[in-house]
Amino acid sequence: MQEKYIDKNFSSLISDLQKLIRQPSVSAKNLGLEECSRLIVNMMKNSGIHAELLYVKKGIPPAIYGGIKSKQNPNKTLLFYNHYDVQPEEPLELWDDKPFSGKIKGNKIFGRGSADDKGELITRIKAVEAFLKTTGDVPCNIKFFIEGEEEIGSVHIEDYLKKYQKKLSCDAVIWEFGYVDEKDRPIISLGMKGLLYVELSKMESIRDAHSSLAVLIENPAWRLVEALKTLRDEDGTILIKDWYKDVVKFTKQDIQTISKEPFDSVSFKKEYRIRKFVGNKTGLQIKKALVGDPTCNIAGFTSGYEGPGAKTVLPSKALVKIDFRLVPNMDPHKQLARLKKHLKENGFDDIKVIMIHGEAAARTSMSDPFVRTVKNAADESFGKSILSVSSAGTGPMFSFVKFLHSPCIAVGSTYVFARIHSPNEFARIDLLKKTTKCMCKIIRNFALV
Amino acid sequence: MQEKYIDKNFSSLISDLQKLIRQPSVSAKNLGLEECSRLIVNMMKNSGIHAELLYVKKGIPPAIYGGIKSKQNPNKTLLFYNHYDVQPEEPLELWDDKPFSGKIKGNKIFGRGSADDKGELITRIKAVEAFLKTTGDVPCNIKFFIEGEEEIGSVHIEDYLKKYQKKLSCDAVIWEFGYVDEKDRPIISLGMKGLLYVELSKMESIRDAHSSLAVLIENPAWRLVEALKTLRDEDGTILIKDWYKDVVKFTKQDIQTISKEPFDSVSFKKEYRIRKFVGNKTGLQIKKALVGDPTCNIAGFTSGYEGPGAKTVLPSKALVKIDFRLVPNMDPHKQLARLKKHLKENGFDDIKVIMIHGEAAARTSMSDPFVRTVKNAADESFGKSILSVSSAGTGPMFSFVKFLHSPCIAVGSTYVFARIHSPNEFARIDLLKKTTKCMCKIIRNFALV
Repeated sequence: MQEKYIDKNFSSLISDLQKLIRQPSVSAKNLGLEECSRLIVNMMKNSGIHAELLYVKKGIPPAIYGGIKSKQNPNKTLLFYNHYDVQPEEPLELWDDKPFSGKIKGNKIFGRGSADDKGELITRIKAVEAFLKTTGDVPCNIKFFIEGEEEIGSVHIEDYLKKYQKKLSCDAVIWEFGYVDEKDRPIISLGMKGLLYVELSKMESIRDAHSSLAVLIENPAWRLVEALKTLRDEDGTILIKDWYKDVVKFTKQDIQTISKEPFDSVSFKKEYRIRKFVGNKTGLQIKKALVGDPTCNIAGFTSGYEGPGAKTVLPSKALVKIDFRLVPNMDPHKQLARLKKHLKENGFDDIKVIMIHGEAAARTSMSDPFVRTVKNAADESFGKSILSVSSAGTGPMFSFVKFLHSPCIAVGSTYVFARIHSPNEFARIDLLKKTTKCMCKIIRNFALV
Repeated sequence: MQEKYIDKNFSSLISDLQKLIRQPSVSAKNLGLEECSRLIVNMMKNSGIHAELLYVKKGIPPAIYGGIKSKQNPNKTLLFYNHYDVQPEEPLELWDDKPFSGKIKGNKIFGRGSADDKGELITRIKAVEAFLKTTGDVPCNIKFFIEGEEEIGSVHIEDYLKKYQKKLSCDAVIWEFGYVDEKDRPIISLGMKGLLYVELSKMESIRDAHSSLAVLIENPAWRLVEALKTLRDEDGTILIKDWYKDVVKFTKQDIQTISKEPFDSVSFKKEYRIRKFVGNKTGLQIKKALVGDPTCNIAGFTSGYEGPGAKTVLPSKALVKIDFRLVPNMDPHKQLARLKKHLKENGFDDIKVIMIHGEAAARTSMSDPFVRTVKNAADESFGKSILSVSSAGTGPMFSFVKFLHSPCIAVGSTYVFARIHSPNEFARIDLLKKTTKCMCKIIRNFALV
């Protein structure tokens, strides 16, 4: 019944998505956030969903709360987590149409946010609308929590979750994104890695010196090179004492699932034009690493003269940005303490360490019944789907687990090559429709369990 | 006699220097070079010196040649090497007056080029003028060679020296600069270090990747860190095989001279706000290092995200600029080959090495009679002076030795705190007068030997 409604009213999903795309909402620039949040509240109301804005602090983009109490099944609650902010649209010159055009070409609708995350959001609103318009009820309680700072690191997510813990309480969470692979199989992801993002800096002199003085004045870039070299070996293994101590081992079920995940080494190498993988990984090693390996990545290094040609300068300072991906049970603050201890014990106490961001990893257990619920719905809607123990990326899933104590699963409509965060981002129209129907099935299945 | 002339006509030296300062001649911007060179030719002609412009290639700033044949002593030739180009005047906001003002305040004349190198040049022109105007002759042949690209690395100096080798032939060279220390003692420098400036770069992928892929894609910044760590130990010793093989050892006379050079560790550390020297050097070690230690300095390192906050990026490329200071007998090309061999043998053949600049070191022997000639003149003029085996800096002295086969000695009027290359550059008027007289004494002494 809902599926028919979706087919019949699909043009309104597309035109609503266009409206959303055409309202820029760039959190990094604090652009259009309030406007976009109000637009969504109205759209949800038009779909029959109670919606309101939530606030934690002045000057911070509001979040949107949405809710409908189920008459038939008021004791089970499913929460949809989404975000209405988008990545900056730059570089402008690489867009074929205007970044916020919402232009349709064949099976694609283009524009910043078309996939990430306005496309995902619209499928969920429209799935709920389908129930309300066809039955006047929903199979279980539905809640929406839509934040406006995801693209800048969900900086106030815990403030929201803490303040509105009761309002947002639920039994399960559908995460804000979900990929569909090149064979049209949804990838159902059960977890996200954590992140410890730090800045290591060394200030030697008060100003750049003539490099002829390198015989006397210590070079801060050299200091960082020396310190960095002690952190990681050439295969990517992190050499900091006890770095892996708290890491949870894979279960047998995890390994089984991981081994079934598809990964096309040849295409991947071609895509990035690389010849080999870090540590010469092959086969299952690759898949296990994506799901479960902590990393120590140099995200940025800057010191001295960076222009063309030669400048004989001895830099006064050097700075490196490192992102450590974490896996379940690594605590960002504990790992930070281990890093600091390591530097101190290796004689690098002259290097300043600042934590920019810390976020623990989270994973929903493979044996949680919600996994089966989602997997069945996806298989039914798409013919097949893929379970993934964890995404290689990071999101605030741990905060949701911490405050809402619910399993979180990522499933959605975003084609893997949809160019999210890049020019010419698009959503595939066929996937939007399939996913809307899939969301109906998830709601239905979830209500039954 | 010449000294009296200089005293009497000193105001013309100052006003001519002002004219030179007020004619901007920034080689890095190709600004005012032709105009400045013509101004100098006219000024030299007014002093009675034959002067003309030299050219090697179209589009390259001309050099200036000046010459007077001596009637009394036509078999000995002294050449003055100078440059008429100046450093860029930026940052503008830090200048108290306009950068090309030539403004006089007390004992100082301000402006870009006032010391480096227009102040030096004017003392030499006026010293020669003093002989011509008082005696109608010079004690020996005098030549001037004034280039317009010193501040951008004297890029065509060898083209000039080769093409005009005969015209510029001489028995000794007075180098373009010379410092006077805070106790008003000229530092007579007999050499300059060489330089090998290279860029090491690593390109991994074709574009930046999401850093969650750090488990698979090698990080080029890590590759450079690993390669760099093999080049140098924490005390500054270079670990490349045979790097020091060709280095000429100090003579006993060198060591004696070096040990007499003043160096104020306390002031130096205060000036740069550092607590210790590389390798914990003290006393004679410091002085020996400044004169004779090769270095491996990171002049710049750039990779990935360098802005504020966090960006989880896996950079596609990384680049480091290294300047190796060389000492006599190190050949830049030979050292480059050693660096490349080292990288290859250590498994870093994926790292690209580009040579940006190479220049060998040069030193005039302590036992060369020209040393005594200059030292005596400086002692007479200033009461005392300091001999230095070599400057810690680099200049094209080796090219002069190669083509002109003559001893080169740096002696001049530039106060050590004259802020050359910086805002509010100035020349001290008292030192300009003393140095002009000192140049007369050098010419006289040289003619006699």
